[in-house]
Amino acid sequence: MAKTFHMHKARLETLVDGVFAIAMTILVLEIKVPELADGRSSDALLSALGHHASVIGAYFFSFAMLAVFWVWHHRLVEKIRLFDFPLLVCTLTFLALVCFFPFAAALLGRYPLNLAALLVYVPLTGLIILLQTLFFKLAVQRQLLLESVSADEVQATQRRNLRGCAVLFIASIPTALRVHVAWVAVCLALGLLFIWLSRAKAHSGKASA
Amino acid sequence: MAKTFHMHKARLETLVDGVFAIAMTILVLEIKVPELADGRSSDALLSALGHHASVIGAYFFSFAMLAVFWVWHHRLVEKIRLFDFPLLVCTLTFLALVCFFPFAAALLGRYPLNLAALLVYVPLTGLIILLQTLFFKLAVQRQLLLESVSADEVQATQRRNLRGCAVLFIASIPTALRVHVAWVAVCLALGLLFIWLSRAKAHSGKASA
Amino acid sequence: MAKTFHMHKARLETLVDGVFAIAMTILVLEIKVPELADGRSSDALLSALGHHASVIGAYFFSFAMLAVFWVWHHRLVEKIRLFDFPLLVCTLTFLALVCFFPFAAALLGRYPLNLAALLVYVPLTGLIILLQTLFFKLAVQRQLLLESVSADEVQATQRRNLRGCAVLFIASIPTALRVHVAWVAVCLALGLLFIWLSRAKAHSGKASA
Amino acid sequence: MAKTFHMHKARLETLVDGVFAIAMTILVLEIKVPELADGRSSDALLSALGHHASVIGAYFFSFAMLAVFWVWHHRLVEKIRLFDFPLLVCTLTFLALVCFFPFAAALLGRYPLNLAALLVYVPLTGLIILLQTLFFKLAVQRQLLLESVSADEVQATQRRNLRGCAVLFIASIPTALRVHVAWVAVCLALGLLFIWLSRAKAHSGKASA
Repeated sequence: MAKTFHMHKARLETLVDGVFAIAMTILVLEIKVPELADGRSSDALLSALGHHASVIGAYFFSFAMLAVFWVWHHRLVEKIRLFDFPLLVCTLTFLALVCFFPFAAALLGRYPLNLAALLVYVPLTGLIILLQTLFFKLAVQRQLLLESVSADEVQATQRRNLRGCAVLFIASIPTALRVHVAWVAVCLALGLLFIWLSRAKAHSGKASA
Repeated sequence: MAKTFHMHKARLETLVDGVFAIAMTILVLEIKVPELADGRSSDALLSALGHHASVIGAYFFSFAMLAVFWVWHHRLVEKIRLFDFPLLVCTLTFLALVCFFPFAAALLGRYPLNLAALLVYVPLTGLIILLQTLFFKLAVQRQLLLESVSADEVQATQRRNLRGCAVLFIASIPTALRVHVAWVAVCLALGLLFIWLSRAKAHSGKASA
Repeated sequence: MAKTFHMHKARLETLVDGVFAIAMTILVLEIKVPELADGRSSDALLSALGHHASVIGAYFFSFAMLAVFWVWHHRLVEKIRLFDFPLLVCTLTFLALVCFFPFAAALLGRYPLNLAALLVYVPLTGLIILLQTLFFKLAVQRQLLLESVSADEVQATQRRNLRGCAVLFIASIPTALRVHVAWVAVCLALGLLFIWLSRAKAHSGKASA
Repeated sequence: MAKTFHMHKARLETLVDGVFAIAMTILVLEIKVPELADGRSSDALLSALGHHASVIGAYFFSFAMLAVFWVWHHRLVEKIRLFDFPLLVCTLTFLALVCFFPFAAALLGRYPLNLAALLVYVPLTGLIILLQTLFFKLAVQRQLLLESVSADEVQATQRRNLRGCAVLFIASIPTALRVHVAWVAVCLALGLLFIWLSRAKAHSGKASA
């Protein structure tokens, strides 16, 4: 049964686009209309909105993150021929984390200086990016790419994925610093590892060419 | 009129995908950002999130259930040629229950140890799975399958549906046990009945081959 | 400019399906998880859910109404070749009312015995059905139907639309009775008018055949 | 990499339609079911709904605005061949503002007489319309239009976009008046500038014909 299992791309893409559209729109639900004692005072409303500035900032930042994930996902999926069972599980897990993202964004918008909020947001972002990289690696290994995709394109995509992971680990360092200096070392080491992997790919790509 | 009634698959699938995308995303709305006395205390936020652990766990569990329903539905519908009126009613009822699912999930996440929450969640899941099985049975009876679907595939799908029902009734036993021992017997009997039906199908499939 | 204005069906249908999917799912947001003093008491939760029975009933009733609107709309649109400006405005107004429907449903679920809730729900349903009938009438007048749709089908569809309006006005009588006896006469008169229009259509259809 | 970057229209359109469908439906979430001391009193409910009249009015107004943006966007995108990176960024920023729109609408519905609410709503609408105009200008400059689109159509579309911007600035004058008389001059000047640009386009169109 598992051998013949496959899923048409079209329906999975509709689900993915739907989930992203809703996750993006749900972000805004966290920005609450402030309650005012005097509803006609524009100063009171402006200052109330000023207090919401971090929530509004978090909205636009998180929207941009979701947009990046969506474009990234799309650029991987357009190279795929079909989804077998492992790729399907990988994509649905990715969607579960994307749906969870508005909660992490709300947490960070509400408590922008709180370390615990970052400890939800940053690892969640990390998991989403690692899942994307894993997704494409699986697709290459299981030979589910479209024939029209050249080996060079596959190499370039994998390099880009690995660079994305590196950027993520480097960007996590300020958060790691607030937890413990040991985590900084871990993040730095992982960041450098992914840079090295990405360069190794680039080299092997040239060697094979 | 009823004779000539039919519905294009494409539009119904868009509605189904839309409903699933939203139901999946709405699950996360139940996880509320905790209110903290001291917004900068990461310990306070972590412990507040710890108290939400059952809600977060219920989110990922319910997301996985919805993902299973979605994949299951997709694999049945891809074998269907068109929807006549009974299949349409069956699918819309299925959607009504899927839309109701986030409420049941919120109930279970909020009161994980409460029997009444299980008495909403488990029968709802059961109804959804039974409706799927009924949907395919109706499609076979009314000869609405695609011609490219072989008799073997139909048999295999029906066996899988019946096995799904069996798994459901077996999995309901712990909940039944908390209500009354008589319900355990009912669940066990129904579970065994569906296993027997699934094996009978398998046998008749081989006999006809 | 207005002469050459047209809108592709595909995009409008995606918007319609999206709006319906969300309106259906948003209905369930009105069913709140009850707050319990003792979270482990299943009796307390069951009795709290019992108090929500009218909300849950209203959910399934309103879901069925939206499903009927959706199927109805789909059966009209599949006969249309393209949307010009008046049809587009008609469809977008229809969508505005469909999006408003969850609020009316929430009002009725919360105050099922309150006349004012019915005075929002019933006229809204009426407007939606009248707009559908107007939509098809406009499409016929402006010759925007697909060529493959026979005159008989057009007649049958219009009869069905007019019968739908008649059913609506007859079904409004109990609500009208609670306002004033004069409104009963209005509803009855309009109901009979639409029945007569529908029969006149049927007759002219046979005469022309 | 940027040179070969492109995005299929189909997926971006699904995301856009999804986001608009949700933004439209989310508008209604701001209209809260009123809490009544006596749930059976229809007078109490009607008067409570009367107090919500501005929220309900804002709902229909904002729905109409979103519908206009959606139709506008669709009419621009149907002339585009594909999305390169700048167009993609432009469209995603547009979506971020569209998703933010329900918050601005809620603010205006809640505090219709408050200047600060207008100072969120009006500039947001302005940004959305300016982004649309910029989007099409970019598409023309980067030669991403479909070949089937004639130079006359491009001219007419650009004139329409510029007229839209002019209407926006003229319509902002009452709001500007409430801030400071200097802003009235700015709005008027920008409105006249866009009218002049639109007429210049019309003239150059005739000259080149």
